[in-house]
Amino acid sequence: MDDTQTLAKRLCAGDRRALARAITLVESSRPDHRTQALALLDALRGHGHEALRIGLSGTPGVGKSTFIEAFGCMLTGQGLRVAVLAVDPSSARTGGSILGDKTRMERLSRDPRAFIRPSPSQTHLGGVARRTREAIDLCEAAGFDVILIETVGVGQSETMVAEMSDLFLLLLAPAGGDELQGVKRGIMEIADLILVNKADGELKAAATRTCADYAGALRLMRKRPEDPPGFPKALTVSAMEEAGLATAWEAMTELADWRRDHGHFTARRAAQARHWFEAEVRHGLLARLDGSEARAALARLGEAVAAGEMSPAKAAQDLLAHLPSR
Amino acid sequence: MDDTQTLAKRLCAGDRRALARAITLVESSRPDHRTQALALLDALRGHGHEALRIGLSGTPGVGKSTFIEAFGCMLTGQGLRVAVLAVDPSSARTGGSILGDKTRMERLSRDPRAFIRPSPSQTHLGGVARRTREAIDLCEAAGFDVILIETVGVGQSETMVAEMSDLFLLLLAPAGGDELQGVKRGIMEIADLILVNKADGELKAAATRTCADYAGALRLMRKRPEDPPGFPKALTVSAMEEAGLATAWEAMTELADWRRDHGHFTARRAAQARHWFEAEVRHGLLARLDGSEARAALARLGEAVAAGEMSPAKAAQDLLAHLPSR
Repeated sequence: MDDTQTLAKRLCAGDRRALARAITLVESSRPDHRTQALALLDALRGHGHEALRIGLSGTPGVGKSTFIEAFGCMLTGQGLRVAVLAVDPSSARTGGSILGDKTRMERLSRDPRAFIRPSPSQTHLGGVARRTREAIDLCEAAGFDVILIETVGVGQSETMVAEMSDLFLLLLAPAGGDELQGVKRGIMEIADLILVNKADGELKAAATRTCADYAGALRLMRKRPEDPPGFPKALTVSAMEEAGLATAWEAMTELADWRRDHGHFTARRAAQARHWFEAEVRHGLLARLDGSEARAALARLGEAVAAGEMSPAKAAQDLLAHLPSR
Repeated sequence: MDDTQTLAKRLCAGDRRALARAITLVESSRPDHRTQALALLDALRGHGHEALRIGLSGTPGVGKSTFIEAFGCMLTGQGLRVAVLAVDPSSARTGGSILGDKTRMERLSRDPRAFIRPSPSQTHLGGVARRTREAIDLCEAAGFDVILIETVGVGQSETMVAEMSDLFLLLLAPAGGDELQGVKRGIMEIADLILVNKADGELKAAATRTCADYAGALRLMRKRPEDPPGFPKALTVSAMEEAGLATAWEAMTELADWRRDHGHFTARRAAQARHWFEAEVRHGLLARLDGSEARAALARLGEAVAAGEMSPAKAAQDLLAHLPSR
């Protein structure tokens, strides 16, 4: 417990090694680590620092790493401290990406004002979500000003990242003709800002056209109460040439400020906290099936059901009646 | 309890009103009805009758009702007893289809050897699944030879219906050119038989071509151990002209017989029973959050979390520690 207090203090003082250790703690599935992690998160509650949490999604090939590298370095150049967290849905199966995120963002990873953490490897996306959400809290307590939460464009992980962000960016590549790259309507609906990357060289014209197409599509969508006039909007950027990044950042701060002034910022965080609380409850309840006793009962009754000796409903009733309520 | 025994006896004797009452019982969400339903399902266990459970999916407009009407009447004409159950994913929201299934299948609904039951209206698809699965058991105990479980082509409901069927049919309409109608790979993978309907009049040539396209696509897919040579296969039918139905039925019985002879039929039912048992367990566990005490705690702690007074994880831990283990 004393150890937790020390760790909390060092973390709040901006100690990077303390932050890394704390994230390892929340990522651990060991019950004793879990207890420590909960105590730590509780000790950090009310630390008073508020970061801007920016969710960022884009399919492989749109230049996500290049963008984060360029954008992150621009922010640290302005004196801001930037943390980058990744949610890799594939890590739920493969146990983490083979190429570490740091090798993809060499300049940013050597920046003393930046902190990059790859996706935790977990057996399921729900686990990844929980760990990432808690890592965000830790980074915020550690005094980071901007927290970028990156994910690849797979439906479920995008919604999840949007649920833990103050703003959600969609990074796209220039498209041929007027094809809208098959971006799902649901994803368009959660995007606050669409950035069409690669607005450079011979793709520049295509990027401008794609951006106009998306701007048109966004105008056709339902107006959301949490948006100021002109939002959500579409902009072009070139991560390679580091162009348009300042304009994009201006749009983000304009949106965040407006939402703060109009109460939407706090309301969104409150709704998110409630959402994650309910997810935690469901997760914790279902975790009761992971104990050795429950597993044995599941196997035994599963056999009986498969053999036709019991109905699924009756067997489930029996199992639940004897489940330990830890 | 005595009443349950009587109901079970009447149902096994093929009493249609007893069957209808029994299905209403398993569809009810009242706790006392649930207790009776479980007792009834238990009393019916080992009734000895085995029906062929056929899942059937198709998007609106492919002629599903016309097919079921024609196919069902052909089977009853052969002396077989046919039950039709519907899984309507939209009923989870709207509370059932407005046009009853019986009006869509007028001839079959008046057939004394047929029994048609519309989709139960439930608040979620999981509830619909549970009720339908139990209704299948009831129809089987009531001596039906063929149970058709119909659903519209929406990903999740199709997988669900396949999980409660011995065979899974996909009904399609003729497509223009060589376009494969955007049938998802996952759905192709669970189909045992693809039937291209409307092979009549001016669509006949298109139906034949579409059928050949699908036959080609099926040949390219991974061979499954539970299939005899030549399966999964694609055939053309015309529900309107009642053509190709006997051939389709022949393919179904050939497949079912082969699976019975090779142990796959029983193995599939055993795996399904185990799957539904596990789903029941998860469902029953999460139902503990529906009690008034749990709801009150969820609301109270949810407020605290939203106000930033507690972390989601800590609040979840508190709630779960005091959850009644009923």
